Amino acid sequence: MKLRVINPNDSQTMTEMIAESCRSVTDLTEIDAVCAGAGVASIEGFYDGAIAAAGVVQRVAEGEALGCDAYLIACADDTALQGARERANGPVMGIGEAAMHAASLLGCGFTILTAQQKSVRILEANARSYGFADHCLGVHALQMPVLDLEHSDDPKLLDKLIRRAETVINQDGSEVLVLGCAGLTTQQPMLQQALGIPVIDGVRIGTLMLESLVRAGLYTSKRCSYAYAG
Amino acid sequence: MKLRVINPNDSQTMTEMIAESCRSVTDLTEIDAVCAGAGVASIEGFYDGAIAAAGVVQRVAEGEALGCDAYLIACADDTALQGARERANGPVMGIGEAAMHAASLLGCGFTILTAQQKSVRILEANARSYGFADHCLGVHALQMPVLDLEHSDDPKLLDKLIRRAETVINQDGSEVLVLGCAGLTTQQPMLQQALGIPVIDGVRIGTLMLESLVRAGLYTSKRCSYAYAG
Amino acid sequence: MKLRVINPNDSQTMTEMIAESCRSVTDLTEIDAVCAGAGVASIEGFYDGAIAAAGVVQRVAEGEALGCDAYLIACADDTALQGARERANGPVMGIGEAAMHAASLLGCGFTILTAQQKSVRILEANARSYGFADHCLGVHALQMPVLDLEHSDDPKLLDKLIRRAETVINQDGSEVLVLGCAGLTTQQPMLQQALGIPVIDGVRIGTLMLESLVRAGLYTSKRCSYAYAG
Amino acid sequence: MKLRVINPNDSQTMTEMIAESCRSVTDLTEIDAVCAGAGVASIEGFYDGAIAAAGVVQRVAEGEALGCDAYLIACADDTALQGARERANGPVMGIGEAAMHAASLLGCGFTILTAQQKSVRILEANARSYGFADHCLGVHALQMPVLDLEHSDDPKLLDKLIRRAETVINQDGSEVLVLGCAGLTTQQPMLQQALGIPVIDGVRIGTLMLESLVRAGLYTSKRCSYAYAG
Amino acid sequence: MKLRVINPNDSQTMTEMIAESCRSVTDLTEIDAVCAGAGVASIEGFYDGAIAAAGVVQRVAEGEALGCDAYLIACADDTALQGARERANGPVMGIGEAAMHAASLLGCGFTILTAQQKSVRILEANARSYGFADHCLGVHALQMPVLDLEHSDDPKLLDKLIRRAETVINQDGSEVLVLGCAGLTTQQPMLQQALGIPVIDGVRIGTLMLESLVRAGLYTSKRCSYAYAG
Amino acid sequence: MKLRVINPNDSQTMTEMIAESCRSVTDLTEIDAVCAGAGVASIEGFYDGAIAAAGVVQRVAEGEALGCDAYLIACADDTALQGARERANGPVMGIGEAAMHAASLLGCGFTILTAQQKSVRILEANARSYGFADHCLGVHALQMPVLDLEHSDDPKLLDKLIRRAETVINQDGSEVLVLGCAGLTTQQPMLQQALGIPVIDGVRIGTLMLESLVRAGLYTSKRCSYAYAG
Repeated sequence: MKLRVINPNDSQTMTEMIAESCRSVTDLTEIDAVCAGAGVASIEGFYDGAIAAAGVVQRVAEGEALGCDAYLIACADDTALQGARERANGPVMGIGEAAMHAASLLGCGFTILTAQQKSVRILEANARSYGFADHCLGVHALQMPVLDLEHSDDPKLLDKLIRRAETVINQDGSEVLVLGCAGLTTQQPMLQQALGIPVIDGVRIGTLMLESLVRAGLYTSKRCSYAYAG
Repeated sequence: MKLRVINPNDSQTMTEMIAESCRSVTDLTEIDAVCAGAGVASIEGFYDGAIAAAGVVQRVAEGEALGCDAYLIACADDTALQGARERANGPVMGIGEAAMHAASLLGCGFTILTAQQKSVRILEANARSYGFADHCLGVHALQMPVLDLEHSDDPKLLDKLIRRAETVINQDGSEVLVLGCAGLTTQQPMLQQALGIPVIDGVRIGTLMLESLVRAGLYTSKRCSYAYAG
Repeated sequence: MKLRVINPNDSQTMTEMIAESCRSVTDLTEIDAVCAGAGVASIEGFYDGAIAAAGVVQRVAEGEALGCDAYLIACADDTALQGARERANGPVMGIGEAAMHAASLLGCGFTILTAQQKSVRILEANARSYGFADHCLGVHALQMPVLDLEHSDDPKLLDKLIRRAETVINQDGSEVLVLGCAGLTTQQPMLQQALGIPVIDGVRIGTLMLESLVRAGLYTSKRCSYAYAG
Repeated sequence: MKLRVINPNDSQTMTEMIAESCRSVTDLTEIDAVCAGAGVASIEGFYDGAIAAAGVVQRVAEGEALGCDAYLIACADDTALQGARERANGPVMGIGEAAMHAASLLGCGFTILTAQQKSVRILEANARSYGFADHCLGVHALQMPVLDLEHSDDPKLLDKLIRRAETVINQDGSEVLVLGCAGLTTQQPMLQQALGIPVIDGVRIGTLMLESLVRAGLYTSKRCSYAYAG
Repeated sequence: MKLRVINPNDSQTMTEMIAESCRSVTDLTEIDAVCAGAGVASIEGFYDGAIAAAGVVQRVAEGEALGCDAYLIACADDTALQGARERANGPVMGIGEAAMHAASLLGCGFTILTAQQKSVRILEANARSYGFADHCLGVHALQMPVLDLEHSDDPKLLDKLIRRAETVINQDGSEVLVLGCAGLTTQQPMLQQALGIPVIDGVRIGTLMLESLVRAGLYTSKRCSYAYAG
Repeated sequence: MKLRVINPNDSQTMTEMIAESCRSVTDLTEIDAVCAGAGVASIEGFYDGAIAAAGVVQRVAEGEALGCDAYLIACADDTALQGARERANGPVMGIGEAAMHAASLLGCGFTILTAQQKSVRILEANARSYGFADHCLGVHALQMPVLDLEHSDDPKLLDKLIRRAETVINQDGSEVLVLGCAGLTTQQPMLQQALGIPVIDGVRIGTLMLESLVRAGLYTSKRCSYAYAG
């Protein structure tokens, strides 16, 4: 099967990081990773999301022509998720959504760690909308720009992440950590190792959950809300 | 003061209908009505909304340069509402949002009547997100395309609306009717007269509520979530 | 149009302060400010509210005879709001309700600052009932009697307000401040200036929202719950 | 112990019916049944409740002087319940509240049957406020005035009640019936017998639950919200 | 009447402590206190609950044969509560459930104090399920094993309880304390005395509430969910 | 990897049907399907669930010794799910839970079809607890015993299922169907074909989601609530 991974921002470096994470968890699925191409350097807030939305759904439309079986939107705020579902035949997930679903299955309460304060309320609203108001015990920011997270081999970044994660997990009384930014994808294995609790990267688990939905013969319902437009 | 009214779809006829409704309720405010210009004929579903979003926020950016004091997004699904807030200094409302707020103040429970079935779940989700899960007793569709509503002088349309409204109000036990489509704006006075209960047109009340917020010296908070991007 | 503003407590000084705030935001509307006359010096808790309730609805009944177009209940706990709606033809709002509606439109999350600890749970319950459980991030008390707020020209009061407001806004991560007491009405302009975020005084915005509802031709639904008694 | 039962309306006939129900379930407790004395013939809607509220809390104040140990507010909309709690040392319950608590313990979902349509939204809002939003599956009206229920020995009334109750229980899929009007108190034994499911009369169970709270040494917390006024 | 009290764990000492508390509040009811007999020393977490569940419902089945009128499950996590209801004719309550119901009637917000951290999320989920999400302001652990609470005459235990209770009540802004462990039952009178607010022991109040339900002629609905199996 | 599938009831025929469904979607995973062995013929209600719970967690304990990597509880009411999580190192899911998660990703609202009326409230409560209160639009029963579903090759059963499914989907306005009984597992492909919308069998998708969690290196958090008992 073929999975199109759409990075709503236009950082090619980040798109490659993301694709690598996807490939690290499966060899059953071809990964076709693309930027949305809407001209947004990184999605930091509602405005960036509004600008990037058309790019995301256009990459889905293009993917349909190319025979893609499923779509992963690789930004933790799940940019244009429902618009993408309307345009796709196969299943569509966002990485924020995928990570929250997985987290709710592995512990009694999770914390989300995102890059910037501006994303906190977006992720809180998404958690409520997906149904995880009672499971999501807190959303916290690292207080650093998304693109700084690309330098994933900087040991100081990992140290900072570990300390911040420990603080917010203790504060919230959480049992699982959700990485609330695609830029953190490469850190998942090391963070999980360091923290001793499940650390969820939506890129990895989203890839596998979409693969599962396709293998089970499932697809996006076209009965009404996601029926093809006009 | 100057209010920019942004019609997310590109129907000039509908934009003029909308502007007329705005002007019918106030002469304190200059109405600057524009199409989003994103190439969407009418917003019917999530995909159309994703395509139109960038146009909406760009019309806000443009409005800021022109000195607009407030913004009304004239589609009942409140396309790109939060992105628009991030880009504006003055207050921003969507007509769906404005109508639901007003409806919650005038009766114990309201019903929303929209054009197409595809919008039902969008409006339900918006109602929940604004806080009106307990106040919104039902969202129902007329089952007709948005653009057909432009022919507002057809008496058969009004008859159909009245009959459908009475049915759904009785079914839901509602006390107020919300018009869930900008295309219904011209029908508000006749519908309210015919039904004998408050009928809320978000175009009219949204115009006046934005005027109120500006006259009270209020504006969009720039403290965090709606702080200007980059 | 004519707006009757009903102060549930019997402080004439506070009623005048309130009327002045109403008049400061509009000259379209005649302000008829009255005390409830139920013999309560200030509304501090549920018991005071129960005593004052009959006075509030009787002032509405009286206002109907005098041709009032709308009613504003000028106590942040919105004393007898629904009883007043049942007795009125025009729209009725409470200042707590008005302020929360406005606050939910201007930022992602608001904090309410009230006078006394006894009001905190009342305002929390009202926030839930109006639909703002997710928008209201905290209700906090100044820990001072309502009537002490009448001395609005004391610079120490403003200083105290500013410091307390900054503390609770930071603690809650709020983006908008709601003044949860009519006695704070005169402080709104200075507080908003000092805090750099929208500060909502329900007296001011309630006056304008009621004016909006009347100008839009809207009224309290008489279909069922608010139908005239007996 | 001594229980003061306060009928918010001023029907002496109904007060006696209520007292009889109280006495039918206990002989451990002295029943002191009084009318609120606020001049309301029957509580049918929000306005009546606002008028009656002061009477209810004054009867509590009087009861404190007389050494009453607990208070039952004998109207299904629990008029001035929280104001009464603030004035009382002992526990206070409303019959609507008492019945909903009991109902939630005896089946998976209950239906409330009240006298008039005007009370439906009041009882729905109370159910939400007490925490029974998920347990209360429907509130329905008999569509008859409260005072007509006084003629409790009319067999046609019982027949009408049984048929209406069966209809709404089936419609809601409920497992327990709550009587949503004090005027129905005498019908409880016959209705429970006829319907074959638990039928809850808040007068009876409220009397016993208050007796339980007093026997357990419990009382209304005076820590903050219900601390004595001024 | 005869009340069977089922201690889900197999500590005979604790069962006797529990029975003593039951008897301390009533002499109207015969107390038949038994261990579940499922081989669990103390219920600390979900696994223990799963192991104990069959024992609890079997003790109910046995009680039916013995003519018991009601059942109290004497573990704060209300082990197998719904299964027990299905097997019983009379009413069934858990002590956690009973205590939360009572607490919601006596103050605006309660705190639960339990023995171990592992029970916190269980009690939070139960509070949500019973409807007390808004009333339960916090669940906190003493961080000590359940069985250590048996040594109820150790004055150090009471001191520790008082200090911990004061801390969490202040932190949550609660007005009532719920004892979230059967092992705390003997401490209720002293704790209530020391704290000056209502302290709810579900053993005591559960006994009396069940007695109330039986005296009112009520029973578990057999209409559907709790209909007898097979 | 090795997945232990635990059928809470003791029907060997059904266990084999379930194992077949698991194997039909993956050949990456060894399927070890067992009955709970608690002596329950089929789980129909809360009592059966309480009896079966110990068997389910004991099969997990046994599985741990055998090196199982994950556990699927193959009853739609997810018997003893949290107790199983506490005992397992790897991830654990119930088929009801798995199906609801998948359904929420594929359409705006789903309907659950279960075998017996007694399961309806159990599944509704589970939906709320998992977070799907807004996504689950209805739970309906086929009104037939679970074990009758074993005769999966009877064409009349399929016809009956299709007609009932169409009715409830239309009634709820749902876009996805969840099979709320393990006994329906073999019908999924034919039902999905006939209905033209996604039909979710928790056995199939649960198998694949657990495989995903394990392949992503995730496991049950042992930080607190699911820490190993004593």
